[in-house]
Amino acid sequence: MEKIECDVLIIGGGPAGAVSAVTAKMNYPDKEILVIREYKEQLVPCAIPYIFGNTLGSTQKDLGSCGQAKEMGISTLIDKITDIAIKDKIAFSANKAIHFDKLIFATGSQPFVHESLQHALALNGVFTVSKHKNLIDKAKDYITDKEDIVIVGTGFIGIEMAMELANSDKNITIIGGSNHILKGAFDTEVAIEAEKILIESKVTFISNDRVCEIIDKNGDNIVNSVKLKSGKIIDTQVVILATGYKPNTQLAKKIGLHLGTYGGIWVDEYMRTCNHDIFAVGDCSSRRTFITKTASKVMLASTSSAEGRTAGSSLYGIKYIKGFSGTIAIFSTMIGDTAFSSAGVTQEEAIKSGMDIVVGTFSGMNRHPATIPDAQKQFVKLIATKHGGQIIGGQIIGGKETGEMINIIGLMIETKQTIYHVMSMQVSTQPMLTAAPTNYPIVMAAIMANKNIS
Amino acid sequence: MEKIECDVLIIGGGPAGAVSAVTAKMNYPDKEILVIREYKEQLVPCAIPYIFGNTLGSTQKDLGSCGQAKEMGISTLIDKITDIAIKDKIAFSANKAIHFDKLIFATGSQPFVHESLQHALALNGVFTVSKHKNLIDKAKDYITDKEDIVIVGTGFIGIEMAMELANSDKNITIIGGSNHILKGAFDTEVAIEAEKILIESKVTFISNDRVCEIIDKNGDNIVNSVKLKSGKIIDTQVVILATGYKPNTQLAKKIGLHLGTYGGIWVDEYMRTCNHDIFAVGDCSSRRTFITKTASKVMLASTSSAEGRTAGSSLYGIKYIKGFSGTIAIFSTMIGDTAFSSAGVTQEEAIKSGMDIVVGTFSGMNRHPATIPDAQKQFVKLIATKHGGQIIGGQIIGGKETGEMINIIGLMIETKQTIYHVMSMQVSTQPMLTAAPTNYPIVMAAIMANKNIS
Repeated sequence: MEKIECDVLIIGGGPAGAVSAVTAKMNYPDKEILVIREYKEQLVPCAIPYIFGNTLGSTQKDLGSCGQAKEMGISTLIDKITDIAIKDKIAFSANKAIHFDKLIFATGSQPFVHESLQHALALNGVFTVSKHKNLIDKAKDYITDKEDIVIVGTGFIGIEMAMELANSDKNITIIGGSNHILKGAFDTEVAIEAEKILIESKVTFISNDRVCEIIDKNGDNIVNSVKLKSGKIIDTQVVILATGYKPNTQLAKKIGLHLGTYGGIWVDEYMRTCNHDIFAVGDCSSRRTFITKTASKVMLASTSSAEGRTAGSSLYGIKYIKGFSGTIAIFSTMIGDTAFSSAGVTQEEAIKSGMDIVVGTFSGMNRHPATIPDAQKQFVKLIATKHGGQIIGGQIIGGKETGEMINIIGLMIETKQTIYHVMSMQVSTQPMLTAAPTNYPIVMAAIMANKNIS
Repeated sequence: MEKIECDVLIIGGGPAGAVSAVTAKMNYPDKEILVIREYKEQLVPCAIPYIFGNTLGSTQKDLGSCGQAKEMGISTLIDKITDIAIKDKIAFSANKAIHFDKLIFATGSQPFVHESLQHALALNGVFTVSKHKNLIDKAKDYITDKEDIVIVGTGFIGIEMAMELANSDKNITIIGGSNHILKGAFDTEVAIEAEKILIESKVTFISNDRVCEIIDKNGDNIVNSVKLKSGKIIDTQVVILATGYKPNTQLAKKIGLHLGTYGGIWVDEYMRTCNHDIFAVGDCSSRRTFITKTASKVMLASTSSAEGRTAGSSLYGIKYIKGFSGTIAIFSTMIGDTAFSSAGVTQEEAIKSGMDIVVGTFSGMNRHPATIPDAQKQFVKLIATKHGGQIIGGQIIGGKETGEMINIIGLMIETKQTIYHVMSMQVSTQPMLTAAPTNYPIVMAAIMANKNIS
């Protein structure tokens, strides 16, 4: 068994692992950093849906670069860790013993499939949205000449897959267990706007239902329909299960690390596990929300990156006391030509959590005057505490600028700004780029929230 | 003489006046608010350059709406105030005496033309970039069939005019007194990128020079050339003077209000003049910068709006102690297909002000992976104090998202965030909308600034 030594061992090379490695090397340049990952080629996870249509069109166009790792002096090894001797600080692969001082779990997540449907994964034509290149290649090849596709799950990945495939003229049916799509990220009135675009794009949306059986009625191991809880049967050539992801924690569990509510590795605000020499970041870590401090299932590469930056700078003592105080869950996506984004809690979630809140909304245009050729409608909703006016959530519909506008609201939430500050905040406005200065929508939504308090 | 009574009289109906009126009505719904303005039709000021090319193409497409004023119960009068009796609280137009309790000056600004060139304004073919519809109509009509145009001034309006006219296949020469365009808003390396696009668009850029004579050599009152300080003579059919604006303060001066460094009406942080029943907002007010607290010539409708919101809520006592602490000068513009934006101080300005600073820059792409079809390069520069890491400035080059990204940096400056916070801030990233989570450029620039401190 080959013996390898390093100071910091990182298991996993996705966004969380990569950012942890780079951050660790910047903070501790003298330390030997080793990243172990299972596959040589890695997909950029968030762009996987765009492989299936014309936007990217192939996994080759969605390969993540190893970036600065090599030139920064970070070592990478393609291997799989199968066991760890915690006390001796040794991680084992099939033929290597890797001695470490600090260990970071960044083992990621894998598609979650409900127990009742797992056996159907053996059928031809049934796929999950995996993060492995070869599995995505296989799915993409299979789908290419098929017409009818059922997508199960109305989260971001499901919706992005549906739109991308609909744009390739396939017949898409998407099935969700809730009354609306993108539940959790958007309030009903925003989700309805997204659903309209889905329907305009000829996607069939079935709400409040779930697939209870995936069928190959000819017994030829090729899927040809799904049966829903409502009794409905939908003929299809392909079933894509986009029903969420679960943390990869077999190894962490094996070595006795404490796990959190949804099975992720329990960590404190510096991403330390119960053993302070062992950290966990990214989808494999246990998450809670920034506002309500309840367990969160949200998995975002952007959250993983913030966690990686916290872990990478906290390995040998606490350097920045900010730490990571829970996921704000800042999302954005394109549905057709319209972008939708969300940060913090929704109004519905806040009320369910028993929060005393106030809401302000504003509808305008994303250019000024509205006659600017590429002007689009823009809608902003802010959710704030009734007592103190602290901003705890926001949702935006608009053009592509929405993807960065939500980061303004994200920063407001993270830095605990109030509507009283935002009402007179200074912004840049420009005819070709933004709304009018007199009606800048985030400011206007704060003003409306204030009006609704009094 | 007709007698009119109101509680709050606002002189001027541009962005500053309009926002003051709406804010005042929301804060004091029982008060009678009257806005007096000189013209029935008003242009959206920031979009005036786009009237001259194909983007808007006419003043009709750049008319500001009176928005919510009427339905909110705000009165508007088309008239011109010529005198004010401060003690009696009466404003006079030619045939009206308007009694008020509180008065807001929002009289705006007008093109500034150097004394030595003012007589040339009488020539056919010489124009300023006025905010009056009829003057802009006249200029636009005149220019339509002309080919050769000289633009004097390399600020935002000059550059936007140059690009818009260059896109209409006119021969544009733009002349600036500095070594680079957009001086004050951008550091040299950023300005150079903007200049490259200008030159690619076939605009001739003459730096470090100035027009000392505007000539009609045939004595026919039609301009045909300009003479520069360097001795160079440029033949031209049209001269557009985009050499800044000066505050409209004749009336304020007449009634004895105190004026500031660059001639604007002196105001405190609640936009009160030396007389606490009289306020001034927008371009007619005297401004200082948010960071260095020095007098500022920056005129932006977005700044005016923030001032209007402060004045409108402070008329009958101080409601929000935030006030307005100086202009952050958050700019953005499009040059070709690239957006440029800036907030706070530049590196050059900070050094000139004797500040001990650190800078961090990052170059990446505005989509991820970079194979996303509309991906563009993105560059972010952050300027922070060396001691404490407080963010005091930023500049961005990128796609249209730049217009909102700079508002993230603006908020950081306004709320006094440090690079230590930003290094691990949570953001939303999405392939079609933003940079990669692992390389989100504002975060990366903060990380690089931190690296440059240590």
